[in-house]
This record gives sequence, C-alpha cells and structure tokens, in this order.
Amino acid sequence: MARRTATVNRRAGTTTLEWIVAAVVKLDSDKPAVSALDALVALVEDDLADVNRIIVARMDSPVALIPQLAGYIVAAGGKRLRPLLTLAAARLCGYGGDRQNKLAACVEFIHTATLLHDDVVDESNLRRGQASANALFGNKASVLVGDFLFSRAFQLMVEDGSLEVLRILSNASAVIAEGEVLQLTTSNDTETTEEAYLQVIDGKTAALFAAACEVGAVIAGREPAAQAALERYGRNLGIAFQLVDDVLDYSAVQARLGKTVGDDFREGKITLPVVLAFARGDEAEKAFWRRTLETPEHQRDEDLAEAQRLMARHRGLADTMARARDYGARAKAALAPFPDSAIKRAMIDVVDFSIDREF
Amino acid sequence: MARRTATVNRRAGTTTLEWIVAAVVKLDSDKPAVSALDALVALVEDDLADVNRIIVARMDSPVALIPQLAGYIVAAGGKRLRPLLTLAAARLCGYGGDRQNKLAACVEFIHTATLLHDDVVDESNLRRGQASANALFGNKASVLVGDFLFSRAFQLMVEDGSLEVLRILSNASAVIAEGEVLQLTTSNDTETTEEAYLQVIDGKTAALFAAACEVGAVIAGREPAAQAALERYGRNLGIAFQLVDDVLDYSAVQARLGKTVGDDFREGKITLPVVLAFARGDEAEKAFWRRTLETPEHQRDEDLAEAQRLMARHRGLADTMARARDYGARAKAALAPFPDSAIKRAMIDVVDFSIDREF
Repeated sequence: MARRTATVNRRAGTTTLEWIVAAVVKLDSDKPAVSALDALVALVEDDLADVNRIIVARMDSPVALIPQLAGYIVAAGGKRLRPLLTLAAARLCGYGGDRQNKLAACVEFIHTATLLHDDVVDESNLRRGQASANALFGNKASVLVGDFLFSRAFQLMVEDGSLEVLRILSNASAVIAEGEVLQLTTSNDTETTEEAYLQVIDGKTAALFAAACEVGAVIAGREPAAQAALERYGRNLGIAFQLVDDVLDYSAVQARLGKTVGDDFREGKITLPVVLAFARGDEAEKAFWRRTLETPEHQRDEDLAEAQRLMARHRGLADTMARARDYGARAKAALAPFPDSAIKRAMIDVVDFSIDREF
Repeated sequence: MARRTATVNRRAGTTTLEWIVAAVVKLDSDKPAVSALDALVALVEDDLADVNRIIVARMDSPVALIPQLAGYIVAAGGKRLRPLLTLAAARLCGYGGDRQNKLAACVEFIHTATLLHDDVVDESNLRRGQASANALFGNKASVLVGDFLFSRAFQLMVEDGSLEVLRILSNASAVIAEGEVLQLTTSNDTETTEEAYLQVIDGKTAALFAAACEVGAVIAGREPAAQAALERYGRNLGIAFQLVDDVLDYSAVQARLGKTVGDDFREGKITLPVVLAFARGDEAEKAFWRRTLETPEHQRDEDLAEAQRLMARHRGLADTMARARDYGARAKAALAPFPDSAIKRAMIDVVDFSIDREF
C-alpha cells in the first residue's frame, strides 16, 4: 500500500493539497460546456466556490492517504449535481445565510462515500472514463476512506447543529444502503420486476437527490409544504437521472465520448432497459438474457451487441427514456408552488439537462 | 447473490427474525463463564436485554438480506463490551433514565459496521472462530450492510436528540476510519515505530471505547471532569484491549480454543509484538521480518513458528502484555474520582478481565 501511495505522489509531483486544488480547478475548467447546468452554476457561483473550499479543507487528515484518495475521487466526481441542488433549493426558498455551503459539502461527501463503496463492490475498473479510486488505491483504502468521508459528513452536520437536517440525511443514508443491498439481491435475477427496479433506484439514487433539496428548504425555515415540494422535485429528478444513466450504459454515444459501454451488462446488473427487453422477449431471447446476466462471467464478446440489438427491437432504451421524461415532468411540476425566478427556471432546465445529457 | 442468501435461509430453517433472536439468545447462553464480565453483565442485566431487543428491532429492514447479514455478525459479535461500557458509565454517573440503551445499541452498530468493513478489507476468513460474514455473504453485501448499520446508528442518535452525543460519536467514527487507514499505510512496513502503532490502535480501537464511556456521562448530565474521566477510562482500556488482541493472535492459547493463530502475521500486519521483535533483532532476524511481512504472500509454512520463536527470544509478547497492564492501570486510575460502588468495582475488574482473557 505504501508503495502505491508513493506512486500516486510521484504522479502528482506536488504536495497533496496542491494536487487536490489543481484537480478541483481542472474539473471546473476542463469539462465540456453544458448550458443548463452552467446556468445553474453561474447563479450560485460564489456558494459553489465556497463548497469546493470546504470540501478540500474538510477532506484533509493527518493520515496522508485520506486526502490523496478522497481528493482523487472528489476531483473525478463529476458534475457536483447533488450539492448544487442544495444550493439551488436554499436560494429558491429565499434563504440568505451561508449554512447551505457546509451542508452541500456534506451531501457531496455522502455521495463520494457511496461512490467509493460502490466501486469496491462492483469491481468496476472505470468510472467516468478515469481509473477508479478502487483500481488505483485498492479496495481496502476505498472502503475506509469512504467511511471517513461519511463520518466527516456527520461531523459537518453536527457543526451546523440542526437535528432536522441530521434526521433527513441519516434517513437518506440508511435508504441509500437499503437500495444498494436490494440492487445486489436483484443482481443477476432476470425475473426482477419494473417495480422492484424502481424501488432500487428510489433508494440508491433518488433518496440523496431528495434529501439534498429538502435540506435547502429546512435551513430556509420554510413550511412543510415547501419542504415536501422540494423533496418531490429532488426525488423525481433523481429517478429520471438514474434511468438516463442506465440508458447511457448501453448507448453508442458513450463509446464516442471515450467511455466504456456495457459495464452494467458485464456485471449482470438488472436495469430498466433489460427488464423491458426481457419482459417483451420470446423464449429464445429470454434464454439469451438468462445466460448472459445470470452468469455474466461466461459472456462472449458478441453478447453485448446482441443485447443492444434486442433492446432496440423491443424499445428497451426508448421506453426507459420515455419514463425518464415522465419523472422529469413530475420534478418540474413539483416546483409549481414557487414563484417564477431565475433560480427556478435554472432548476427546471436542469431537469431537461439531466435527461438530454450524453454523459 | 440471491443463491447465497437462499443458502443462508435454508441453514437457519426459520424466519429471519426468529433466526436472529435465536442467535442472540445463543450468544448469551453458550459463551464460557467469564467472571468479571459476568459480574458487570449482571449489574446491567435489564438494560442489556433492552439493548439486545433494540439491536434486533432496529437492524430490521424490508430488504431481507440486511437483517440476515447483520443478524449473523451481531450474533457472532463477541462480548458486547462496548455497549456494556455505555450502560456501565451511565450507571456509574448515577443516571436513572433509559437513554443509555438506545445509545448502547448505536455504539454496537458502529462497532459492527467497522467489523464488516474490516473483514472485507483484510480478506480474513475467520473471525472469532466462525466463518466471517464476508466469506458467507460476499464483500459487496458486507460493505453495504455495514453502511446501513452505520446510518442506522446515526438515526438512533437523532432520535435520542443530543447534539453532544452526535458530536462525540461522529468524531469517534472519523477517528476510527483514520486509524484504519493509517493501519493500512503501515501494513507490511517493518519500519513502523511503536509510536505510529499506538496511533493506529488509539484510532481504530480506543476511540470507540472512549466514546462509548463518555456518552454515558453526557446523558447523565455530568460535569466535564466526569466526562473526561470516563473518556480516559475507555481510551486506556481500549488500548490495553487491542494490545492483548495483538498478543493473542500469536498465542498458543488461541489454537487450543480452536481459533486461528497468525492471522495478523499472514496479512503482514504490523503489531506491537512485531515492532518490538524487529527493533531488538539482529540483521538476519530483521531480514526474516522483512521477507515475511513485506511480501506475506510468499511466506512459507514454517515462518509463523519462527516468528513466534523470535518473539519469545526478544520478549515481544511479554513486553506487549506489560504495556497492556500499564494502560489498564491508567484506565483504573481514571475512575478514582468516582465513589466506591458495585458498578465501579465491576468496571475495574473488567480491565483485568480484558488483560487476562484468553480469547
């Protein structure tokens, strides 16, 4: 382990903290322009800069491997969508303080911890086109640094001092774990129903989106109806987001972007496109799905292409996208009680962005 | 995964909940008599029964694999020492309510989560003579159920409603993770100093012992000096406990009890007996330790016996026990401010039990 760590240090060629800051900045400048998300980012720009500072400061530890590994995954951690939702929800609710920044960092820490643990358990080698922290640093370190970030998230909430926020995010954390375990139980099980699948993603993805939004309303001191509306916005957006993720895993667009296609298939993960194609398939097709997904280690090179062909035949991807749009519409409708504003429009546009994105 | 779960269900031959309750009861009736611990258990018997009920009730989930796996590890989880400390500390502080029971369950959940994650990362096959949850249920499930229990612990704390308790246990959780990561960094590193080793166990073991005790004083509403005294008692007891654990891993007594010996050695884990034997060894001996611990996968069958011989020559085990007794004395001294009582005497005796135990 010591040797691996040293390797990472040499790669960086800088101190750990400089490396993390550089990585975080790189994330902001290198990513492709994504208009709807950029619009939201622009509206909460100062807050988001503060969130990034808090993330870098609070992932630090005298145990050097922690900021190294955490910095790697946080920097690689994508669009910062969940913390952005906390910032946006607080703003939408008219909140003028600064508690949202620490809590947004806390939401990102919880998300990062689940990514680290998910990488370990899925033995996936690539996440967002980069070598996963798991592959670089090993399973042991990924689990334990995930635990550190998760603990740190709760320390941040305690500093904030709201038992209501602690309640929302500890509930969400338990539901996320339940969703992940349920996913494991349905894994390789071609008999998984659409209902069971929706229960999985409601837990593993939508719960944190919902909590991230609700927290914004809570710190603004808004009435239960406003909290519930934002919870609903987040939950439906989260489901739509995950459905699109599941589609992208089979989509040719991914390949064009240099990302791996078919990770879910190779793991035997049951997602909605598969559930639909299986349910609509004839006996020979069902036998194909059983063979490839129940014992994915015996898949042949040509199986992924056949899976994609069957999905096209039965509209597995198209109908999953249609459902994503339906959940997206519910997310937008949840914002109806709030008066029109730039932040509201940006939050509505982010729903469309989440559905139309190619990565 | 679904197949594994079914296997476990068939083994149990009962519903999940019946199985867990049976396992918990079995734990209480089957374990060998251990007088000092039994005396403490007898003093808080009703509370402990309540803690066991809370544990069983709150590890439940609609996702069946969660209570199955959690029940397995909680039932196999040993002496319930940490929750006992919370009960004892509350009693010592004159607390007459019942908040200690939920918080003791919470301490046990945190401990269980760390066991599950530690089993995953260490790839150990046996824990306390039983097949580890990891080996039975797989790494994926162990990580995720650990996450669930950890989240559940925070939900229990939120229900209790004390931000001070949340502060203490979220801090302890972060420090535990830091200790575990530090252990990983020192793993296979024969240059690890005694100081670095003590830092590891102060985090990975002593922090939760300390927090479990401190929480008892907090809910009793005791002054900071009493909180600090109990924190000190728990911390020193925790260090002594871990030192003895490390000795037992090389001890012949373990073999007699049907437990594996040499797990730490085979993993290349650096513990105090090794640190002492390495520091006191000549160049040929140092070369032996480097060969066996830096690349443990190349160990030969006869290496463990040689390691034990070198430890005997340099008093590695005896001096580690001497240090354990020293920390034990500090733990007992920390209780000096409290007036004499049956519970105080039992807490003092538990220190001796922790040092003189054979398992």
